[in-house]
Amino acid sequence: LHVFSCNSNPELAKAIADHIGVPLGDAEVGKFSDGEIHVKLNESVRGSDVYVIQSTCHPVNQHLMELLVMVDALKRASARTINVVIPYYGYARQDRKTRARDPITSKLVANLIETAGTDRVITMDLHAQQIQGFFDIPVDHLLGVPILGEYFKKKNLDDVVVVSPDHGGVIRARKLAERLESPIAIIDKRRPEPNVAEVMNIIGDVKGRRAIIIDDIIDTAGTITLAANALLDYGAKEVYACCTHPVFSGPAIQRIKESKIKEMVVTNTIPLGEEKQLDKIKILSVAPLIGEAI
Amino acid sequence: LHVFSCNSNPELAKAIADHIGVPLGDAEVGKFSDGEIHVKLNESVRGSDVYVIQSTCHPVNQHLMELLVMVDALKRASARTINVVIPYYGYARQDRKTRARDPITSKLVANLIETAGTDRVITMDLHAQQIQGFFDIPVDHLLGVPILGEYFKKKNLDDVVVVSPDHGGVIRARKLAERLESPIAIIDKRRPEPNVAEVMNIIGDVKGRRAIIIDDIIDTAGTITLAANALLDYGAKEVYACCTHPVFSGPAIQRIKESKIKEMVVTNTIPLGEEKQLDKIKILSVAPLIGEAI
Ligand SMILES: Nc1ncnc2c1ncn2[C@@H]1O[C@H](COP(=O)(O)O)[C@@H](O)[C@H]1O
Ligand SMILES: Nc1ncnc2c1ncn2[C@@H]1O[C@H](COP(=O)(O)O)[C@@H](O)[C@H]1O
Repeated sequence: LHVFSCNSNPELAKAIADHIGVPLGDAEVGKFSDGEIHVKLNESVRGSDVYVIQSTCHPVNQHLMELLVMVDALKRASARTINVVIPYYGYARQDRKTRARDPITSKLVANLIETAGTDRVITMDLHAQQIQGFFDIPVDHLLGVPILGEYFKKKNLDDVVVVSPDHGGVIRARKLAERLESPIAIIDKRRPEPNVAEVMNIIGDVKGRRAIIIDDIIDTAGTITLAANALLDYGAKEVYACCTHPVFSGPAIQRIKESKIKEMVVTNTIPLGEEKQLDKIKILSVAPLIGEAI
Repeated sequence: LHVFSCNSNPELAKAIADHIGVPLGDAEVGKFSDGEIHVKLNESVRGSDVYVIQSTCHPVNQHLMELLVMVDALKRASARTINVVIPYYGYARQDRKTRARDPITSKLVANLIETAGTDRVITMDLHAQQIQGFFDIPVDHLLGVPILGEYFKKKNLDDVVVVSPDHGGVIRARKLAERLESPIAIIDKRRPEPNVAEVMNIIGDVKGRRAIIIDDIIDTAGTITLAANALLDYGAKEVYACCTHPVFSGPAIQRIKESKIKEMVVTNTIPLGEEKQLDKIKILSVAPLIGEAI
């Protein structure tokens, strides 16, 4: 068994390798002067079961290509099986045609990963479960809810209500609520008229409660910070937020900093650079979960 | 017939569309806040023969992904045929295993382009002709030599010798020499001992002649500027250089500026940003050539 890392998330890769008790494989994933990626495997993988750890987070196209070139190199080096661990699967939100002539990039990416020579995919909290079906190879789909749930359970908060920021996230919210033995609420966004700002109504009772908003991905943090305000307006006494994938692009960190969110709990499927670390952001590791799945 | 452009080379795409007398197709190729590419086709392509113009030059992974997402969108929008014009085909130098466990990224990229749904490829001066065979779809392979040759012919230089900077480029040099009715010479690089700098010997007579060095790609311009020095040492009276693909990464522009090369003639398969334009760099357009091929 060999475990290799590309460049998106070397700390996580190291933690996963440590968890299963093997050293990280010796490989270089670098760039030529013109920006083309090169991969050099410094050890034999002939006949071996190989795992490659790579999140396709920002810069997504480069990280995806690193993964594909690595798989190509492993295939040509006669690895027995190539298992690709993609803790954060980029392009997952382009999963269907929302308008005429849209691409379905999640499916394109699935095809690219298979074409390169991958035998199996391990990933976490796909934005749409349907993406599993975009692959013709086995996909192991891990969930962040147990990790987030355990953290909040240890905090021993009273009067919790778990909140889904949209109708698509209700199942995830219910799973967390079950673990915390709490009720749920749902944020119902409506645009009363075109070109008028959305209004957030809340379905369920949050008054006097500690709200924990859960989402799969937090990107620009616009929705989540507005949701926090709405919850406080409706009488919640504290607001926590959590997600598996902290994309945190553009104004996200500024918004989180200035928001009334008491704590933001995320996992390390996407590494947060130093400039993205705030005291109120708590990072939980998915390494044990992924290590067990390997 | 529709012609669309991605973002690598919009001026060339416009010139090609002008040459064949159609407007450029209306499409947006942009980025979300997190860097993921999105493509929006603003006109119907149903039942149409579509051409997409995109060089996979720097930043190569982004430009490649733009192309793949565009092809995916066109396929799902029921284009009749999808013809991809890649004036500069990136990753062409990773075309074989030079060491154990190397990837063959040129082949990987060919597979990705096919998988996305491409029916035909038009490209120019592939670093290795074998890359045509990496595709199972038709590949039209255009050559820059006629364009470069015509330019030098019009200059009406006396006593020309065409120089190949390495043994792999002799056929290309011979083609240019035929057009200019001139002899050829070859630069023979040898490393006398490991860790000793390469020595450039010249096979053929350059004394008192105007040397025109021709290559397919000029990247960091290291080889070409050293070759120019060697030619002058051997008694050449002037040195010109030309290539189809001006990658010009890293120290290239500085080296060309400081070199004794009198003129550097390139094509617009790769656009040169303003910071890369020098008086001694002459840019020729491949738009008529590609326009004819469409
Ligand atoms: N990287 C991205 N950043 C922001 N929005 C995206 C991204 N990818 C897809 N989308 C949009 O998000 C919407 C899908 O999100 P959802 O309805 O939550 O599944 C679609 O309108 C997509 O165009
Ligand atoms: N983008 C690149 N920049 C610099 N060198 C490269 C690049 N891609 C491949 N190579 C190397 O160039 C050599 C092949 O060039 P050639 O012998 O001219 O075909 C191989 O050793 C490659 O590892």
